[in-house]
Amino acid sequence: MTSALVTGIGQLVTCAGPGSTPEDALGIRTNAALVVEDDRIAWIGAAADAPPADRRIDCEGRAVLPGFVDSHTHLVYAGDRAAEFEARMAGRPYDGGGIATTVTATRAAGDDELRELLSSRMTELRRQGSTTVEIKSGYGLDVDGEARLLRLAREVTTETTYLGAHVVPPEYAGDRAAYVELVCGAMLSACAPHARWIDVFCEPNSAHAFDGDEARTVLTAGMAAGLLPRVHGNQLGPGPGVQLAVELDAASVDHCTYLSDADVDALAGAPQTVATLLPGVEFSTRSPYPDARRLLDAGISVALASDCNPGTCNSSSMPFMIALAVREMRMTPAEAVLGATRTAAKALRRNDIGAITVGMRADLTVLDAPSYAHLAYRPGVPIARAVDLA
Amino acid sequence: MTSALVTGIGQLVTCAGPGSTPEDALGIRTNAALVVEDDRIAWIGAAADAPPADRRIDCEGRAVLPGFVDSHTHLVYAGDRAAEFEARMAGRPYDGGGIATTVTATRAAGDDELRELLSSRMTELRRQGSTTVEIKSGYGLDVDGEARLLRLAREVTTETTYLGAHVVPPEYAGDRAAYVELVCGAMLSACAPHARWIDVFCEPNSAHAFDGDEARTVLTAGMAAGLLPRVHGNQLGPGPGVQLAVELDAASVDHCTYLSDADVDALAGAPQTVATLLPGVEFSTRSPYPDARRLLDAGISVALASDCNPGTCNSSSMPFMIALAVREMRMTPAEAVLGATRTAAKALRRNDIGAITVGMRADLTVLDAPSYAHLAYRPGVPIARAVDLA
Repeated sequence: MTSALVTGIGQLVTCAGPGSTPEDALGIRTNAALVVEDDRIAWIGAAADAPPADRRIDCEGRAVLPGFVDSHTHLVYAGDRAAEFEARMAGRPYDGGGIATTVTATRAAGDDELRELLSSRMTELRRQGSTTVEIKSGYGLDVDGEARLLRLAREVTTETTYLGAHVVPPEYAGDRAAYVELVCGAMLSACAPHARWIDVFCEPNSAHAFDGDEARTVLTAGMAAGLLPRVHGNQLGPGPGVQLAVELDAASVDHCTYLSDADVDALAGAPQTVATLLPGVEFSTRSPYPDARRLLDAGISVALASDCNPGTCNSSSMPFMIALAVREMRMTPAEAVLGATRTAAKALRRNDIGAITVGMRADLTVLDAPSYAHLAYRPGVPIARAVDLA
Repeated sequence: MTSALVTGIGQLVTCAGPGSTPEDALGIRTNAALVVEDDRIAWIGAAADAPPADRRIDCEGRAVLPGFVDSHTHLVYAGDRAAEFEARMAGRPYDGGGIATTVTATRAAGDDELRELLSSRMTELRRQGSTTVEIKSGYGLDVDGEARLLRLAREVTTETTYLGAHVVPPEYAGDRAAYVELVCGAMLSACAPHARWIDVFCEPNSAHAFDGDEARTVLTAGMAAGLLPRVHGNQLGPGPGVQLAVELDAASVDHCTYLSDADVDALAGAPQTVATLLPGVEFSTRSPYPDARRLLDAGISVALASDCNPGTCNSSSMPFMIALAVREMRMTPAEAVLGATRTAAKALRRNDIGAITVGMRADLTVLDAPSYAHLAYRPGVPIARAVDLA
């Protein structure tokens, strides 16, 4: 066992406060230090009372937060869609194929190439303060391809999500039912050993996505195979995604841009289901942002994630998501930081991350700034990084 | 003399193309390499023809651009205004004093404290790809204070701007004319030796800023003392800033949010005067963005800068400004990159920076990406950094 004393902390944002207000929930401590033993937090207290440790990490007055939990990414892929992004920003039509482009490039890439791409993306995330990352499949769309992406993702995170139901691949356009059957059959069997979660892109009236009945079929099959459900829902228009997530006790329903009053009521009555907002998508697609205040004011748990993917949001920056949440969705900096830590951990049904208390994983992020508010006050500036305790 | 061969460049964005379209003006070369001798570019050509050099820098397929030119910052100050930012984002009234808060904290700080703060900010800028930075005074607002800030700024950049006319300080609220007289008299005499530029915050009908006549008085006094003019204009409402900038052949008029047709016509008829847009301010104050397309479509030179300052935009990230310019102001990635390099150099009347040609300063920025478009495609991600040739 090795121990490290983390000291010189200007502001310790534990995200473990009592929580009557978001500011209280941040559980801020000053003049605090902490001791890490191996990969766990072993002690938190006044810096003056700190016990001895094998080594000492001096934060020189910087703020320390729980590592960001990015609960929604699509990081295992090959290829580049910058041209599609440019066309969209210019308002030009572009038939580059969208997700299908990424599927083609990913299928063509070898394991080692994908492993290298994934590794550099994981490094990029850590350098921006993210310490837990969920990764979805969804660029294989056949039995071996989906299983391969999950196997590779599992090499870097325990939070792997089977998303065979990302889109209906072109070869099944004429027989959607056959694709749903595959997703719930052979593909599920091949993927379940490598996945913790099952997810579905639920949008009605889309040639590419899955309607409510198809989504329920996929999720219940996954649950029967031991996977836990989460949902892409209500992104492009009103739809059944939120209600389905609540019905199945999903850990999270992600996007939530178009919600009815009934959707908000359903989420308010389902405290175990988090609404995860992905404002980088609205930034990069020039779309309307979700109404975060409506959700927060209804008492719903709101998390933030990057949705990092090559099509609709190629940003892996949780600090950027926090800045957007404050600027564009009128969350307070406290609400946004909780959304990127404690509530994001809840969206992954994890109680060992997302806060700084004794016994939790020692996943820490340090800011080149004296307070958490700088994550919104200093947009675009890389002030956050995961603390290297190795 | 020492030389370095920069090779492995995936995309060399010279910003020195013929310029019939923004994409042409980028002057992109593939399979190119370049040789730097001391601080100058000595050779550009096909990588296969590269001459020998003392050392070799391998970019491993990354894109290389001219270093960003940040032509508008306020980097010499002490104090923190995160609480003011938080109140503004929450829509709460906040009488923290605004610029006066920074003036008080800056006046109270010693030279060494300011020097250390400035040094860390300059490092932060370089780490995000900026290699030339303009710095304004304006937080001293008395003779010794303004001269001191310019003396400190001059230690890190040649592009120093005397901005005694930043705001009317509270002690002169009852006698604005006396403050203008001071700015044009003893303060100017003390500051001119340390400054290249003179600037004024020109807004009519503001208790804090300077109207058109006051601004003309300040700028002409500065010009008589050998300084070159630039203007903060038309930020908060319609005003005389743009017309004054054109009248005095200013290198740039900055902000340009509220423009009349006559303002646009005046800029279109004054090709030496750049319109510098500062979208980080609109992001951080939740204000309407300037109409960049109207300016570009009128053939006006549009630059981008950060306006990095503790009040209205505490971001030093030129990549973030490029991403905002594309998302919020509908500039193309090519227009935004030119605005951050070649046109920004023009806004400082510099012909030795902002492009990559033989004889120019070897100010280079490398991207962790294969193409310049990734600056907009990967918002918030720190992919740019200045190349260290030392």
